[in-house]
Amino acid sequence: MNALILAAGDGTRIKSVVPKILLPLCGVPLIQRTILTLKDAGITDMIVIVGFKKDVVKNYLEDGSKYGVKISYATNGDYERENATSILKAEKMVDEKFLLVMGDHIFTPNIIKCILSVKGDLVIATDSNPRYIDVGEATKIFIDADEIKDIGKDLTEFNAVDTGIFLCSKQIFPVITQCLKDGKEEWSDSIKKYIENHKVVSYDVSASFWLDVDTEEDLKKAETLLLGSLTKPGDGYISRNLNRKISTKISKHLVKTGITPNQLTLISFMIALISATSFSFGGYIYVAVGGVSAQLASILDGCDGEIARLKFLQTSYGSWLDACLDRYADFLIILGMTYGYWIIHKEVLIWLIGFICLAGTFMIAYAPTRYKEAFNENWRTRSKRIPIGRDVRLFIIFLGGISNQILYSLILLAILANLEALMRLIHHRKDSKN
Amino acid sequence: MNALILAAGDGTRIKSVVPKILLPLCGVPLIQRTILTLKDAGITDMIVIVGFKKDVVKNYLEDGSKYGVKISYATNGDYERENATSILKAEKMVDEKFLLVMGDHIFTPNIIKCILSVKGDLVIATDSNPRYIDVGEATKIFIDADEIKDIGKDLTEFNAVDTGIFLCSKQIFPVITQCLKDGKEEWSDSIKKYIENHKVVSYDVSASFWLDVDTEEDLKKAETLLLGSLTKPGDGYISRNLNRKISTKISKHLVKTGITPNQLTLISFMIALISATSFSFGGYIYVAVGGVSAQLASILDGCDGEIARLKFLQTSYGSWLDACLDRYADFLIILGMTYGYWIIHKEVLIWLIGFICLAGTFMIAYAPTRYKEAFNENWRTRSKRIPIGRDVRLFIIFLGGISNQILYSLILLAILANLEALMRLIHHRKDSKN
Repeated sequence: MNALILAAGDGTRIKSVVPKILLPLCGVPLIQRTILTLKDAGITDMIVIVGFKKDVVKNYLEDGSKYGVKISYATNGDYERENATSILKAEKMVDEKFLLVMGDHIFTPNIIKCILSVKGDLVIATDSNPRYIDVGEATKIFIDADEIKDIGKDLTEFNAVDTGIFLCSKQIFPVITQCLKDGKEEWSDSIKKYIENHKVVSYDVSASFWLDVDTEEDLKKAETLLLGSLTKPGDGYISRNLNRKISTKISKHLVKTGITPNQLTLISFMIALISATSFSFGGYIYVAVGGVSAQLASILDGCDGEIARLKFLQTSYGSWLDACLDRYADFLIILGMTYGYWIIHKEVLIWLIGFICLAGTFMIAYAPTRYKEAFNENWRTRSKRIPIGRDVRLFIIFLGGISNQILYSLILLAILANLEALMRLIHHRKDSKN
Repeated sequence: MNALILAAGDGTRIKSVVPKILLPLCGVPLIQRTILTLKDAGITDMIVIVGFKKDVVKNYLEDGSKYGVKISYATNGDYERENATSILKAEKMVDEKFLLVMGDHIFTPNIIKCILSVKGDLVIATDSNPRYIDVGEATKIFIDADEIKDIGKDLTEFNAVDTGIFLCSKQIFPVITQCLKDGKEEWSDSIKKYIENHKVVSYDVSASFWLDVDTEEDLKKAETLLLGSLTKPGDGYISRNLNRKISTKISKHLVKTGITPNQLTLISFMIALISATSFSFGGYIYVAVGGVSAQLASILDGCDGEIARLKFLQTSYGSWLDACLDRYADFLIILGMTYGYWIIHKEVLIWLIGFICLAGTFMIAYAPTRYKEAFNENWRTRSKRIPIGRDVRLFIIFLGGISNQILYSLILLAILANLEALMRLIHHRKDSKN
């Protein structure tokens, strides 16, 4: 199945020298987002309808191979007319069934995967509870029992809006041709006509994120929403309430640069190295700098993943490298703290505590990933757990550093991490999948 | 699909007070192995044909719920006659398609999974290259292009033997009835008759392990073969050439006791704890005892998995617990070595080395399991790797202990483990699966 992307319009409501669909959102032009989102959903064959400044668009996207997809083009010289004229240009190029999406809409791969699973010759992804768009401007839809009964911008009775994502069959083209003859050039006019003789299915995606970018305000809103979506379900308390708030602000600027996620992983590791070195000198100022830079490394540790997700740069290697370097960073910081305390106090006990702390820290990371390997399913936490993820650990180290209480922060870490590790071994003993 | 297990015979060729099928092989009676192997292959509904000492067999197996399967019984009072008489007793109980296996055969779940995927009304798992059985005693088969043309114990021209595993349909019963009327009571007689009017498909399983247990020698051979199959593809050099040789000898005895794999995991951990404690005293005798007990823990660390595989006791929790306790055992032994060296030599450098050694040791275990999580595929090693698995690490510790060279063994471990960990991070950077 191929996908048809409408990108011919002149986007007059945004003032810009480049076509609207080439405006960057979190570092990635709108149409490139559409293409990469479709690719994430498994669609790799695409037709882009160009019109306004078509050569600029074609020069930017080329044949799609740099995105790992195949892009063909059709041109709509009448791009100032409504969008049904664009769709018709692709009549000979689309497959028997094809996806139709708008080049200036933001949506998740999940919406595409879902609509592909719905049966019907015309399926429209609808939103019964639109949160992020101006409903007044939207194409309204009246649905009765999953079937679309009416559609139009001026509908007074409606219970959803269209999201600009459609699963079509070639049966639609004769209807479009007829509508254009009748002077009805909106895509929704063709759907309205099609409804008269065919069943049109609605698929509600109100739980998913999508957005229609028409104005500069929309673009800003989209940026805010994308940045806000970066908090992960597994984020710990400090991450959710402190680190993410700062890291997303940093990422907002970093997306505009060419810095890669793996480079950020290395930078975060370097800062951890600075923290470890500073701690190892032992004096109060050094220890305070060590604590602050540990927390800084913790914050920056979020940015690599954020940039990767915002710019479609997530790789398996990146996530693995990040995890492995996090372990080494933890090790170095604990070693630095231990050594720094030792050279001041010369108490051998600190080495013992440092050792135990290091073991617990590793086990907190090792146990869940090894669990996934053994059980072939995600780590579930049955019990109330001690929240001792990396965000919390580095925050304890930060507090220990600025308050010059290295001994107590290491003892606290050693106890909490090992206690949690031990509790996990006991609590999961009934997970008996063979 | 249900399975029919023939277990009526009196097994006269083995002298025993219990029926042959209840004789233990590596701690598990033959028929229980058959049942658990079928279960591993996804078959949970079974019919056991009993005859000789039928109440003993039924009392042992009960309704199968203790094995997680459902067992029904049919009785063949004429169990001294040949086996076709037994099969006929289940005519009303089997599904339209059913598996037929012998209660005194050893085979792998993989053979069952494979034969289930073959189409045909009668499929026979054949072996064109039987390695472990007496071909003179076997039922011979002549195959032409996957189709069985002739079968019988006295065939002169043959190119395979039957393995005692059959995928049948109910169409076979009228043929059996006819054969019995004609005085032909061997199951192979019925197949021979069936071939006259039907296609019988052969599925070659010569790459898999199976065995027919008729005599006490067969039972001993089966034990040797099962123990020999315990070496895992991932086993390191020391494990393959030293530890497994000893651990399988220990397991051979342990299977006869009621000890569980998880208990063995804990015992191995306790011995590691003894090793760590002994190392921590620092004097030569203590260090030597520490080294020897570390190696002992390493050998015993193989037994839990071996017992689990021999007795069908593998669990996800067991493999996870084993891995987590291995990490703690490694930590404790390195800590013990470091502390023991410290109290004798009072050189703070040993703590630094111990720390680095601990970090490398953890990373060697963490990186592959985290790789599997990130890439959703098994760890592949592209490069020539430094063989520094747990077997080798504990062997280095053993050598360090008996030669009283704690410092050098820790330095060696620290260098090798961290170098390997670093090389992995670099070598896998091109593994770019998104």
